[in-house]
Amino acid sequence: MREVSSSYTVSLHYDRRLYRQDIAGSIAHAGMLAKQGIIAEEEAGEIIDGLAEIKAEIEEEKFQWRPELEDIHMNIENRLYEKIGDVAGKLHTARSRNDQVALDVRMFTKDAITEVVSALHDLRRSLVEKADANADVVMPGYTHVQRAQPVLFAHHMLAYFEMFGRDIERFRQAYDRADVMPLGSGALAGLPYPLDREFVARELGFSRISTNSMDAVSDRDFLLDYQSASAICIMHLSRMGEELVYWSSDEFGFIRLSEEYTTGSSIMPQKRNPDFAEIARGKTGRVYGHLIGLLTTLKGLPLTYNRDMQEDKEGFFDTHDTLLDTLNAFSGMVSGMSLNPDRMREAAQGSYVLATDIADYLVAKGMPFREAHGVVARLSDFAIEEGKSFHEIALDRYKKFSELFESDVLEISVDSSIAARDVPGGTSFSQVKRALADARAALEAENGQ
Amino acid sequence: MREVSSSYTVSLHYDRRLYRQDIAGSIAHAGMLAKQGIIAEEEAGEIIDGLAEIKAEIEEEKFQWRPELEDIHMNIENRLYEKIGDVAGKLHTARSRNDQVALDVRMFTKDAITEVVSALHDLRRSLVEKADANADVVMPGYTHVQRAQPVLFAHHMLAYFEMFGRDIERFRQAYDRADVMPLGSGALAGLPYPLDREFVARELGFSRISTNSMDAVSDRDFLLDYQSASAICIMHLSRMGEELVYWSSDEFGFIRLSEEYTTGSSIMPQKRNPDFAEIARGKTGRVYGHLIGLLTTLKGLPLTYNRDMQEDKEGFFDTHDTLLDTLNAFSGMVSGMSLNPDRMREAAQGSYVLATDIADYLVAKGMPFREAHGVVARLSDFAIEEGKSFHEIALDRYKKFSELFESDVLEISVDSSIAARDVPGGTSFSQVKRALADARAALEAENGQ
Amino acid sequence: MREVSSSYTVSLHYDRRLYRQDIAGSIAHAGMLAKQGIIAEEEAGEIIDGLAEIKAEIEEEKFQWRPELEDIHMNIENRLYEKIGDVAGKLHTARSRNDQVALDVRMFTKDAITEVVSALHDLRRSLVEKADANADVVMPGYTHVQRAQPVLFAHHMLAYFEMFGRDIERFRQAYDRADVMPLGSGALAGLPYPLDREFVARELGFSRISTNSMDAVSDRDFLLDYQSASAICIMHLSRMGEELVYWSSDEFGFIRLSEEYTTGSSIMPQKRNPDFAEIARGKTGRVYGHLIGLLTTLKGLPLTYNRDMQEDKEGFFDTHDTLLDTLNAFSGMVSGMSLNPDRMREAAQGSYVLATDIADYLVAKGMPFREAHGVVARLSDFAIEEGKSFHEIALDRYKKFSELFESDVLEISVDSSIAARDVPGGTSFSQVKRALADARAALEAENGQ
Amino acid sequence: MREVSSSYTVSLHYDRRLYRQDIAGSIAHAGMLAKQGIIAEEEAGEIIDGLAEIKAEIEEEKFQWRPELEDIHMNIENRLYEKIGDVAGKLHTARSRNDQVALDVRMFTKDAITEVVSALHDLRRSLVEKADANADVVMPGYTHVQRAQPVLFAHHMLAYFEMFGRDIERFRQAYDRADVMPLGSGALAGLPYPLDREFVARELGFSRISTNSMDAVSDRDFLLDYQSASAICIMHLSRMGEELVYWSSDEFGFIRLSEEYTTGSSIMPQKRNPDFAEIARGKTGRVYGHLIGLLTTLKGLPLTYNRDMQEDKEGFFDTHDTLLDTLNAFSGMVSGMSLNPDRMREAAQGSYVLATDIADYLVAKGMPFREAHGVVARLSDFAIEEGKSFHEIALDRYKKFSELFESDVLEISVDSSIAARDVPGGTSFSQVKRALADARAALEAENGQ
Repeated sequence: MREVSSSYTVSLHYDRRLYRQDIAGSIAHAGMLAKQGIIAEEEAGEIIDGLAEIKAEIEEEKFQWRPELEDIHMNIENRLYEKIGDVAGKLHTARSRNDQVALDVRMFTKDAITEVVSALHDLRRSLVEKADANADVVMPGYTHVQRAQPVLFAHHMLAYFEMFGRDIERFRQAYDRADVMPLGSGALAGLPYPLDREFVARELGFSRISTNSMDAVSDRDFLLDYQSASAICIMHLSRMGEELVYWSSDEFGFIRLSEEYTTGSSIMPQKRNPDFAEIARGKTGRVYGHLIGLLTTLKGLPLTYNRDMQEDKEGFFDTHDTLLDTLNAFSGMVSGMSLNPDRMREAAQGSYVLATDIADYLVAKGMPFREAHGVVARLSDFAIEEGKSFHEIALDRYKKFSELFESDVLEISVDSSIAARDVPGGTSFSQVKRALADARAALEAENGQ
Repeated sequence: MREVSSSYTVSLHYDRRLYRQDIAGSIAHAGMLAKQGIIAEEEAGEIIDGLAEIKAEIEEEKFQWRPELEDIHMNIENRLYEKIGDVAGKLHTARSRNDQVALDVRMFTKDAITEVVSALHDLRRSLVEKADANADVVMPGYTHVQRAQPVLFAHHMLAYFEMFGRDIERFRQAYDRADVMPLGSGALAGLPYPLDREFVARELGFSRISTNSMDAVSDRDFLLDYQSASAICIMHLSRMGEELVYWSSDEFGFIRLSEEYTTGSSIMPQKRNPDFAEIARGKTGRVYGHLIGLLTTLKGLPLTYNRDMQEDKEGFFDTHDTLLDTLNAFSGMVSGMSLNPDRMREAAQGSYVLATDIADYLVAKGMPFREAHGVVARLSDFAIEEGKSFHEIALDRYKKFSELFESDVLEISVDSSIAARDVPGGTSFSQVKRALADARAALEAENGQ
Repeated sequence: MREVSSSYTVSLHYDRRLYRQDIAGSIAHAGMLAKQGIIAEEEAGEIIDGLAEIKAEIEEEKFQWRPELEDIHMNIENRLYEKIGDVAGKLHTARSRNDQVALDVRMFTKDAITEVVSALHDLRRSLVEKADANADVVMPGYTHVQRAQPVLFAHHMLAYFEMFGRDIERFRQAYDRADVMPLGSGALAGLPYPLDREFVARELGFSRISTNSMDAVSDRDFLLDYQSASAICIMHLSRMGEELVYWSSDEFGFIRLSEEYTTGSSIMPQKRNPDFAEIARGKTGRVYGHLIGLLTTLKGLPLTYNRDMQEDKEGFFDTHDTLLDTLNAFSGMVSGMSLNPDRMREAAQGSYVLATDIADYLVAKGMPFREAHGVVARLSDFAIEEGKSFHEIALDRYKKFSELFESDVLEISVDSSIAARDVPGGTSFSQVKRALADARAALEAENGQ
Repeated sequence: MREVSSSYTVSLHYDRRLYRQDIAGSIAHAGMLAKQGIIAEEEAGEIIDGLAEIKAEIEEEKFQWRPELEDIHMNIENRLYEKIGDVAGKLHTARSRNDQVALDVRMFTKDAITEVVSALHDLRRSLVEKADANADVVMPGYTHVQRAQPVLFAHHMLAYFEMFGRDIERFRQAYDRADVMPLGSGALAGLPYPLDREFVARELGFSRISTNSMDAVSDRDFLLDYQSASAICIMHLSRMGEELVYWSSDEFGFIRLSEEYTTGSSIMPQKRNPDFAEIARGKTGRVYGHLIGLLTTLKGLPLTYNRDMQEDKEGFFDTHDTLLDTLNAFSGMVSGMSLNPDRMREAAQGSYVLATDIADYLVAKGMPFREAHGVVARLSDFAIEEGKSFHEIALDRYKKFSELFESDVLEISVDSSIAARDVPGGTSFSQVKRALADARAALEAENGQ
């Protein structure tokens, strides 16, 4: 018979990341047991001192990890016995592995979200700074990857600012759902001791305690909240990654990513492969996969704890590391990229993207919308046939299409087109200026939180 | 060359569900155009009357759907031309298909969430009522599908009450993210007209307007929020479905589902296959699939609108129908199921599930936790060998394991075990009574919203 | 209590597609029952005639579908009773719904695969024809969406030819796994009748019978095989869709898709949005979703039949329709697209893509590989600084970088680069010519199958 | 600016597993270069000796891994320079990282499949042995988790034998698709050297060479084939895991898993939590996740190599490790589990599961099928009312339901029911005996391969 590798049930290689949470949780628990008279004050003191020493050992990398003890909890528990003897056993009074694990993972999740929100904040700041520094850069806005209407580059950047703002909101809501203290639920049914659960919650910075012990040990919703927020966030990043990749191509030529986030070719020194943007886009798969993985694991599981749930952590940790690095990579890519404003403006002028503006011009002069569209369609046909841009058509030719055309039709330009879209949320200079001011204010407000 | 079926690009067969939202949106838009002097009051009046008639035609099933017009928007637009002639064209002033679709789907999402929250509320009420009506029923609590500790059936039901409460919260947050009015974003860049977007938002019951036009037409986060909330919700339902299936088996024999939610066998009249619980569990796949489907579709899409995004609706509608029906099926199953309290209590007594209580008894008498565990392990070994339950062991035998045992050890029972877990969130009668009161209060509060 | 919509358990709206398979299966079963003396010949005759009439009714759209009978099987069964009375009941001798459904879905799957393979064949032919017709068109080959080396357009098309060839192989293997006749397995345990299962298999064109009754009614592997083959196939199509979208952009400008597969803008007549390529790319989500959906549904299901498995069909049918249409759309897009060979060649010349060829030139003259790379790196630096292409550098300047350069270095060109890659599988004219011949031969061979 | 962790682009921590494949590939490449006169024999000799030494260093754990070199390829390349100096550079003649990586991963995949097929073979053997050793054990067959008909335990085990047999077939087909030698494709376009690609293929044990260079560096189908075969395989395992979990419960009580694959409770010594079966079932999520992850990564990627594709390996390796361990765990669980045949038979007798047999009895006596069903339904009603099993009903009572009943109706039993299902694939003793013989023969045949 072949052997199952010992790592099959062992989780130490990933759950040791929970050491801070595990120790903090144990300290709070021991303190509460003493306060409630369940164990003696001195016993609690010994336990707490022992745990503090273990934490120091781990952080100074002096701790001897023992995989044969399977997980972080047993490693710490065992070390505590070594240090303080049988008193260590008292720590496990009125606590089960089930509520202990739930506590540790919730604490880690809260910390993880705090990190992600901070990285999202930084990325948003990078976007605003890049937009600010290039406030007058014009580029084509696309639909169907076809040039559609001119927009400000800053407006485009602020579209991402919005997306990442929603991500922050979503992660904060995930934080709230993680912010529930489960200790005191026992294995599943609660515990036969006079516990002060609210005290433990306060000590550990939780805003409330769980209200049903069976749910408390079965619930991994907070991880799904984290994972689905991450999936949506990396979807946003994959869209931006796609744009950075194509904008870096010879064909678009809109941007140049900094060396730090590209790899070159020894033989083609001018070449810069946008590797970070590609890897980031590729990592979308991993994050989606971890979401569907946890959903699959939880599907159809009866209450309460089943060992299947051990699978909740590894994908979560990997999602967290991936997301954090990817956010930081985008902050760096955005900050470091240089634009090619001439190429961008040129692209915005081509392709008869001003056709809509000419139609709107006629509507403004009183022509019904649909009729205006017909006139411009004929005008475009003519222009294409002649191989001319709208600017190169003489006014008297315009008048053959409609008497409403005046000389000011020749003033329709990329800039006038942009200026005209002066509605809240639109790409006009003034709207984008205001939007940038709002964005800076939002960043300030976030900073203050 | 083989033909692509005409339905490939046609969306009418599913997007006609948006007719109410589309018409309401157009009416608000026409009203705003008139208010702002962009079209004449009489024009707006004609448009609005025409749209009202079209709505009536649809609801009276007199509307002639024309698939060759591809979608709901063109069907309504075309009918409006038939009714009021060229004035119909004015409706499309200052509006693009891109912001129109975004508006319709957001409105539908808000309505959908309202329905789902209501169905979740009903299911929560069914759980509380069933728990209330069986407040004294005892059953085994399981870990690893092994009997672990006795719990109240009501406590188990309230664990689901918690889950569905989180679902409501999650859907409400999805509602907030859908509650943003995108009209006025145009194709992608905003519009060159003096629009009053806040007016349109108020008319349509939105709490705010979108703040970046490119984001507004690219964003489908609100659908992902809906889909991931649905995925988590149906995961909860799949867990309950699994329990109902097994509890209905001959082996468990805890419950009997009502005929309405089971199918029989003509030849085995006593047999009741828990078909609804199975189908519900099976439909988890569909809902997960639609979530991953939309995430996949959006992965790597550049801004702004791409036709790929037409794929956003069909899975969403199917998820919505599935979830609503499944929630209602569970409300019905919970309300209609009858319990077999004797069988449940009997199961809670077996399997030495009181061993933990005996250990806690010794701890309460002063024995250290770990030592107590050792004593009970030896006691259990003895009991198994003798083929006796803990109750069948005489006190003097107990005393051979520890002098701390007194006659009250024989009072340890399923009921005393439950009573002892009197910590907030625990399964004791008083805690569950309080939790039920809290649950009823929460339902009242929800009703008032 | 809210009602569950009647469609929750009803499958008629989708499983009526199985009518041909269901009737053919019943006819074969009735014939076998008579052959084995289990029912009388005349009884079988009545049953078979009745079924033939029902089939005609359905195909002439005269059949009255009754949703309250829930599924296709009950609709046909009920109609048979109406037609021939109680003899109809004999058809169900020695058959269960469980093996009947398995049979129908297997037969449908086999038919579905035959259709898909044919559509893949057509697409492969379109690719070869387009490659043939443009055998001398040169374009840049890309890595990282950066121009890397010149290739023949035909070579690029043949890369897709390979992918779709693997798809055919994969679908054929799925066919083999579907090609197992399950009837005779009964509900799960086999049947107490002297059946001739091999006879039924032959009648229905199956190559073999199932060998374990419990597996036969539990197994949906053949659908997963179909779904995963479809997921991989549409992944290929999404890659091609992405390329068609970008090649259609102003920035690339390599191709122009035919009107049939694009949508225009009334106001910008030259504009062609590549809607079919986008929708196809978008539909990747749906196909991935159905795969994960079925995997989820089957996860953790105990043997044998569970009602969850009713969920196996709807996603399968949708995948099938989607895939078939998408394949046909690509056949049409490929056949109908026109190239812009000048633009493509021009792009292949830019960006110093010939640097590698110059290095290989030096290696051929005896310089070690790594040294050659260094020389060309310096040469490229020089060229970029001077703003010159490699062709514009004089030979004596070349010689300053290495004495090995001779006048023939100036002969290095897009065409010489392509010609040099004359290794099996390479992009040289002769290799591609041979590959095209092989491709045509493969198509011929497939046709003959 | 926050830093991106250096591991973001580094793949060394997982791709070092490819060292054997990478070195073997390089040796074959160097040999071919010499054979073709592209490099000198002595140069090839130095390279090959150097690589052999590096392999030894790695296997003796003396190799100094350098993460800053990012991947396995650069680590080996760099070490070769250290060892043999500039000649090392000649190894990279006529090879690109793109075709090198494709080669390594294909070789690893082939090895991985060989291991998985062997583990599947072992599991199949365990099933057959367990079935053989318990050839007369009877248990209930279930539909809807309701007892439906008695079956042999061996028949149930052979259902899994079938599933894992299909898995082997699927993995072998994946092997064939991996078995294509890509070296010689260069970066994407082929190489300008007189390579002998067939020679390299033979050296490395490949059955054929790739036929399109662009496809060869873009293609990861073989990994998707592996991942989808794995997803289907672990779905099978999850079904078996679910059954082992429930069969181990107090309620079913059919089996007892060996200590090796369970964890106990210190305090409840009789308790055995089926942890391995649970973890295995939980790991389904991970394997599904990696499949969807890779599908997502590849969605919409243009040709040819994009850095996104670096994400192809980590999930693949994790799937492989997971699957192999899980298969081995199941082999062990199956071999080590002990049955409770009395409990299983008892369960098979309950619940009126013989009703179908009584109906078939009447049909055999000439009663039409549907009429027989009616009689048995009434008989069952009577039995339930009287609280009797079918055996406890007197013959004269039977006759009141139908005159066709004779005394032999009382001989209908679990055993007669099983014996009667004597159709190929059925559960009768003789059929199962034959199926076991076929299974053993299949195992022999596999062994010989």
